[in-house]
Amino acid sequence: MTHATPALEPISDLVAVVPAGGVGSRLWPLSQPTRPKFLLDLLGTGSTLIQDTVTRLSALTDEVYIVTGARHADAVAAQVPQVPQELLIAEPSPRDSMAAIALAAAVIEQRRGPSIMGSFAADHVITETQAFAEAVATAVAAARTGKVVTIGIEPTEPSSAFGYIRQGSGLEGVAGAMDVREFTEKPDPETAAQMLADGGYVWNAGMFVVSTDVLLGHLARLQPTLAEGVRRIAAAWDGPERAAVLDEVWPTLTKIAIDHAIAEPVAAEGGVAVVPASLGWHDIGDFDSLASMLTPDAQGVISVGRTAPAAMVKASGATVVGGDRPVVVVGVDDAVVVETDEALLVTTRQAAQAVKDAATSISGL
Amino acid sequence: MTHATPALEPISDLVAVVPAGGVGSRLWPLSQPTRPKFLLDLLGTGSTLIQDTVTRLSALTDEVYIVTGARHADAVAAQVPQVPQELLIAEPSPRDSMAAIALAAAVIEQRRGPSIMGSFAADHVITETQAFAEAVATAVAAARTGKVVTIGIEPTEPSSAFGYIRQGSGLEGVAGAMDVREFTEKPDPETAAQMLADGGYVWNAGMFVVSTDVLLGHLARLQPTLAEGVRRIAAAWDGPERAAVLDEVWPTLTKIAIDHAIAEPVAAEGGVAVVPASLGWHDIGDFDSLASMLTPDAQGVISVGRTAPAAMVKASGATVVGGDRPVVVVGVDDAVVVETDEALLVTTRQAAQAVKDAATSISGL
Repeated sequence: MTHATPALEPISDLVAVVPAGGVGSRLWPLSQPTRPKFLLDLLGTGSTLIQDTVTRLSALTDEVYIVTGARHADAVAAQVPQVPQELLIAEPSPRDSMAAIALAAAVIEQRRGPSIMGSFAADHVITETQAFAEAVATAVAAARTGKVVTIGIEPTEPSSAFGYIRQGSGLEGVAGAMDVREFTEKPDPETAAQMLADGGYVWNAGMFVVSTDVLLGHLARLQPTLAEGVRRIAAAWDGPERAAVLDEVWPTLTKIAIDHAIAEPVAAEGGVAVVPASLGWHDIGDFDSLASMLTPDAQGVISVGRTAPAAMVKASGATVVGGDRPVVVVGVDDAVVVETDEALLVTTRQAAQAVKDAATSISGL
Repeated sequence: MTHATPALEPISDLVAVVPAGGVGSRLWPLSQPTRPKFLLDLLGTGSTLIQDTVTRLSALTDEVYIVTGARHADAVAAQVPQVPQELLIAEPSPRDSMAAIALAAAVIEQRRGPSIMGSFAADHVITETQAFAEAVATAVAAARTGKVVTIGIEPTEPSSAFGYIRQGSGLEGVAGAMDVREFTEKPDPETAAQMLADGGYVWNAGMFVVSTDVLLGHLARLQPTLAEGVRRIAAAWDGPERAAVLDEVWPTLTKIAIDHAIAEPVAAEGGVAVVPASLGWHDIGDFDSLASMLTPDAQGVISVGRTAPAAMVKASGATVVGGDRPVVVVGVDDAVVVETDEALLVTTRQAAQAVKDAATSISGL
């Protein structure tokens, strides 16, 4: 980079929330229930996905909350020691994204009153940090108008791996933000190609910026028991009853994704806005998408997290992850070879989606 | 086996010679220059190929010579401690099979006078021990008539991996032995199929039984400098000059295979006989032929030398060799995964022949 990147400026009143959940089962054996994707240095850069996420958000706000499973709380605390212990929210068990984000919203509001919060997944890659900061600033401005705001990713290909957001007209008074007409499910490839050709669609990357009182207000209306539950837990959070109330209430909370609980119904009411952005955003779902982000060596091999040599004979496009021994691939194109202490995976980029069944295939033996 | 196997009887005057050479480069990384195929427990039975070979021959004779490279002499001695040190012939460098076998013949003749010797490769698999003993006995009887005798394998498929021997009429006076019309090179698949259909052909498995004076007589005529060289070395073998003579003469010996030096020209003169036999003989040349000798588990995986589980997702026919971790193959049919301390190989049974270039692909990096 020869041009200077402008220093990022904190965004007034923004509180960041990082839901850190999801194993990433198509990245087995790198990812495991005990070592989920967000704890991995997936790109071999020397920092993990959650470390990168917290670093990116810490440039925008001093308050970065992390909501994660109790079993991962220690690992998260060790990876991001700059996050104070009181901003780590440990879920006793997974209850999907709405409970996680709503609890964070309720705790934030309990502590500091209604605030603009931005929720950003712990395991996404964003390479355009400046563009991200600008999109968040625009989303915060839109959120101040009372909207639920999502940051949508300008599609770079007709992907059927993501849901899409259909834009409407510009949001009045906030340049760069648009009304949202609807959220759509992951399309088939033909539909995805048509959406890309038509324009006006962005990928739903699960990034939401919203005032806590707006979010909790929608929740009280659309999922009242969930809203009531997180308010009860939040009221007890900083007192002696936290554990007791959490144990009592948490298991009763409705398991629902924020998309279904809030984004889709509120969009239908005209209450959602989107900030379209190009962020170098990637949700690395499998070894094919991981490989697509990396550069092959002179021999055509993509190596991740290893220094030993790798070579191909009558083969092309190998991706080799982990391990400390030489690897040779003979006669298998686009091979993916992944070594960890626990297991060895052999697949191809074309078959990478089916890796989600690999871990259970072993435990079933 | 419910029927009793007859005890094998020693064959009078037979001296066995086991040339132990050849890396087996298509079995990399199991085989390596420092760990050739004959030193491997390739089938995971608990004994190595040379151990099985010596055990098989020790039932037939008390005298089993081994000719191997000096760099492997210690490993061979450790694997077959029942072979006396004086029967281990260490070659200073590889000079092909004729020099190895001729030196053994000359040393044997020097020590005990003209004898019937049988030469059997160290790295072949023979499962029918009784049939082997009977074939050797017939071959010894044929060798006593002055013939160079080979044991030929009745073809079980139209293989193009082996040379073939074309039989003539029966050898007079020795039931079970036939005159040899000619040795043929490895045929293409169509020719191999035609030979199998025509009948009268057996595979050349490189097993030769011949009187030492007959062998050395042919050699003196066909390769006189080689014959003279091994006689000089043999004369010094059991005296103080062995090392000096070996160092001087060995590097000058013609590099030639016994097939080209003796078997082919003597067959053209009518001096070779063959004993056709079905021995459960296998020359395991690559991981495809290794896999074809083994039985898959209930999940369809062939495992060799490992106890950790292996599984397949959207794949069939995997072969997994070595390693102590679970292995999962996703979306690659007939995968072959081979782990050693030094390297990891990923290939398929169809591509197994190309493994011969794997080791050099790595060292070339």
